[in-house]
Parts: sequence; structure tokens; C-alpha cells
Amino acid sequence: MGVGDDCARVRVGHGMELAVTTDLLVQGRHFLAGAEPRALGHKALAVNLSDLAAVGATPRWITLAIALEAADEPWLAAFSDGLFALAERYGVDLIGGDTVRGALLTIDITALGEVPSGAALSRGGARPGDDIWVSGELGGAALGLVHPEIAAAAKRLHQPEPRVALGQRLRGLAHAAIDISDGLTGDLGHVLERSKVGAQIHYDRVPKSRAFADVMDPVLQQDCVLSGGDDYELLFTAAPDRRKDLQLLSAELGLSLSRIGTINAEERKLAILDTHGKSMAHRGSYDHFERA
Amino acid sequence: MGVGDDCARVRVGHGMELAVTTDLLVQGRHFLAGAEPRALGHKALAVNLSDLAAVGATPRWITLAIALEAADEPWLAAFSDGLFALAERYGVDLIGGDTVRGALLTIDITALGEVPSGAALSRGGARPGDDIWVSGELGGAALGLVHPEIAAAAKRLHQPEPRVALGQRLRGLAHAAIDISDGLTGDLGHVLERSKVGAQIHYDRVPKSRAFADVMDPVLQQDCVLSGGDDYELLFTAAPDRRKDLQLLSAELGLSLSRIGTINAEERKLAILDTHGKSMAHRGSYDHFERA
Repeated sequence: MGVGDDCARVRVGHGMELAVTTDLLVQGRHFLAGAEPRALGHKALAVNLSDLAAVGATPRWITLAIALEAADEPWLAAFSDGLFALAERYGVDLIGGDTVRGALLTIDITALGEVPSGAALSRGGARPGDDIWVSGELGGAALGLVHPEIAAAAKRLHQPEPRVALGQRLRGLAHAAIDISDGLTGDLGHVLERSKVGAQIHYDRVPKSRAFADVMDPVLQQDCVLSGGDDYELLFTAAPDRRKDLQLLSAELGLSLSRIGTINAEERKLAILDTHGKSMAHRGSYDHFERA
Repeated sequence: MGVGDDCARVRVGHGMELAVTTDLLVQGRHFLAGAEPRALGHKALAVNLSDLAAVGATPRWITLAIALEAADEPWLAAFSDGLFALAERYGVDLIGGDTVRGALLTIDITALGEVPSGAALSRGGARPGDDIWVSGELGGAALGLVHPEIAAAAKRLHQPEPRVALGQRLRGLAHAAIDISDGLTGDLGHVLERSKVGAQIHYDRVPKSRAFADVMDPVLQQDCVLSGGDDYELLFTAAPDRRKDLQLLSAELGLSLSRIGTINAEERKLAILDTHGKSMAHRGSYDHFERA
């Protein structure tokens, strides 16, 4: 409603909360000048849908604000193709936007979703004894940054798949959830922080991108898998008596779910164990806005 | 709800529609490098609240995405001061954000408001015979661009006042409404386009910024008043039998409302008449994104 007016207008379903997220992508920071516009359109939306997935919301509406140097119609057409292909897949409507001229390509999408009142997933619900799970495979996107020539890794970086269906199905099943946008250790750290718990992860159980088979560099692999950003998988915790449910869900969605560790009561402490059960050193995760 | 999670969550009131708008401000396009951060914080929010006002919505929530070169704490503190001073005045909560590093200062705010279902104002409701009204005074912001040394004009440009209370009170009273962000003739043109009507405006009835008293340049004044952007007053149409109601509302809000012309059936035709009733030439309005 309200197309062409100063505001779009939408109706949120009865008994639903509105989930809201915004992500800003800036040339030179999140993508390079000359980035393929179709992939960029996909990714700009995907990162927002991933946030909605992390709280278990159903994506409904987006606004798009974009600054670009000139009205480059072929560029805009390709960008729109990528964005709308993903939007249509999830029934998301573009309800508003602002297109301005700016010297640096900048894209901001705000995404709105619906979630039944009180049912949203949060970072703060993890409990000692919970299993820790991740969807899909990790490290591929970070590998794509270092080795853009590996097609499977580059695809993970430029065309991440938001885990929308998984997020919705985790409502009532998971205790806590987050999307892995900044890296496994960093994002798990947010869960530990908010839930006031600790965690133990078994490195050999962490699902690693198959693209690493092409590089055979265990140090790079470990760095990408533990600290690499941009994978947009979901990390979640659930009670051990939910393992069977989660195996069935994995089969139903055709999406691997890996149990990689356990939540404990050691507040904010994260231990990553190697195959011998010894604690591994690991660096912090990538921060888009390093402190000056 | 959901503070610190991947999404914020809010509840939209029963029987309410959600009004949504987004505005992107880019350095070098909407403001100069070195712009006063407090005023910028105010304006970035004001332009969004003005869009909500134009549909008669009550502002409720905003997200803020900002790209800046470095984590400049004094700058951010002043920007936040300006933004929150205005937000608090209207009971608006910042519910989400994204702060990233980018070479060019860029600010995107998405604003969410509530409006009773079916009661929103639209650009498309003007009817032949309607009076055309504008709030406040026009041309001051455009004058501030040319003559930044005139304090009253500069204030209009950098610290516009969104007509939030007026917008809400116009529900059920006005037939059509729009905010004057791109200039009187341009924005009235949008109403004519959407409503499939025409309009006649009397130039001498258009309220002009008092700041023009300092310049005595009738050509510049006419250009600023008819085509200057950034005033963020409301233009609306209403039936002639609402004149008394609107006079009372003007007195109650302490905000001048001027009746500047009439809607007619001459589809999309805009005539601006001088004091002798002769049609005046006028240029089109400013477009933030000129077509290449």
C-alpha cells in the first residue's frame, strides 16, 4: 500500500512481532569497485535475510537505499536481477527506496519480517548442557577472499545463501541462535556474552568448506573456519534431547546440521579443542569497524 | 525487544498499519564535508519524520546505518545529540543500526510509524474544487544554500522542522498530502500526477520565508519559493468547507497554514498566477538524481 506516497504502508499480521534489521554495504569496504552487480544485489539482500533467519522471522518487506555515481541502467538492471531473484524466492516485497547520486557505491537495505509474538530466537537463550550446532559448511567465504580463483569459495563469498527456512523451523527447538557473519568464534562469543555461559568446541567436528580440498593449507583453513566472516550459516544451541528432531529437520531441508560442541557454565569462556582434546589458540574474528 | 540480537523486534498496535520510509544522505551530495554533526543528526532524522508526517503517521522506530571514515567519537557524540534530541521530542526509538567504515560519510535512516488502518494520507486523493494549503513558509532552505550567512535561512536548511503533529491532525481532514522536500512545483506536481487533477496557484498567496527581507532579490526569491527543496513543510488539499477547521488547527498548533490555490479538473496542468492573474513561467524542481 502507499506506492508512490511519501511512505509505504504494510499490515503486520495479528499476533506477530515485527523483526527489523539494517545492513550497510560500502564500496572499498564490503566489496570492490567493479564488483559483479548481480551478485551484489543478491548479497545485499542475503545478509539482511540472514539476520531475519537468526531470530526465526519470516521475511516480508525491504527498503533499499542506494548511492551510485551515475544512473547506469545496465548496472542497475543486473543489480535488480540479483536482488529480486532472491526476494521472489522468499516472497519479500520491496516497499520503499531512495536512489541518490554519490561518489562511492553504497547500498543499505532494511529488512522487515514477522515472527509470532514471544517466539523469536535470541542470542541470550543458551543454557549449560546445550549442544552447539552450525548449518552448512564454514570458511568458504573467507577462502574466496584469499583464493578468488576457487569458484566454489568465490560463490560462497559473493552469493551466500541465507538460512531462512532453517531459522523459522528452529523456533521452539533452539534455545539461542545467531548468524555467522563475522566468524564462528566471534559470533559464538556474542552468544556466550549474552547468555552468560561458556562453550567447548571440537575443531574436527566443525564442518569445513569442501573448497579447502583445493588448497591443502591447514593454517589458512583453520583461520578461515574459526574466524572467517561472510558465511551466513546459522549457529544455534539446543537441548541434547532435540538431536533426533534436528537430524530429521536436516534431512527435510536438505541442509547439513553439525553438532560441534557444548555450552557450559564457564561464563564467557570459549575453548576450542584439537583432535587430542588440547585447547587450540585462535584469533578473534573480523570486525568491519576496527577501533581507531 | 531483541536489543543485541540480529534483529530488533517491535509490536505494531492493533488496527494500525505500519508506515515505512528510508532516506539516504551522502556527503558531497546532500551535505558538505565538515558539515556540523549536530545539525546533520537532526536533519537525517527530520527528513524521515517529514515523510511519516506526510502520510499522517505517528513516528515510532528508526534504524540508522552510517558509514564514516574513522571512529571519531566527538563527531559521533554531536551527531547523536542532534538525532536523539529530535527523536526524544517525538518519542521515537532507535531500534537497530549498522556502523561501518567508508571513505565517504553516508547516513541512511529508515523510519517506521503507525497509522490507523485505512486512515493514511496519500498523494492520490486531491479532488477538483479542493483548496491547496501549505504549512509554514517556503524558500528559506534554498535561500540558505545561496546565502549561508543569513542565519534564519541557514537554520531552515540545516535544521528543518518536520510537521509531525500537523500530519497526524490532517487525517480525516485533508484529501491529499505530500511533504515539500523537492520544491513546491515539483511536489505539487506529484499530487497532480497521482490524483489526475490540475491546480492553480496564486504566487502572492504562497508564504515566503521572512529571510528574503534581507536579500531583496525577487528573481532569486521566486526561484527558491517555487522550486527550492528542503523546506519540509506539508502541502495538502482539503474541501473548502474545512477552512474553519484548518484555521482552528493552525491556531492550536501555532503553525501558519496558507491557502495558496485550488485543485481543478485539468489533468496534470499546473498554472501559477501572478498578482495580475497572468500565468508565470517557472522551472521544474530540483532532482537529487538527475538523469544522465
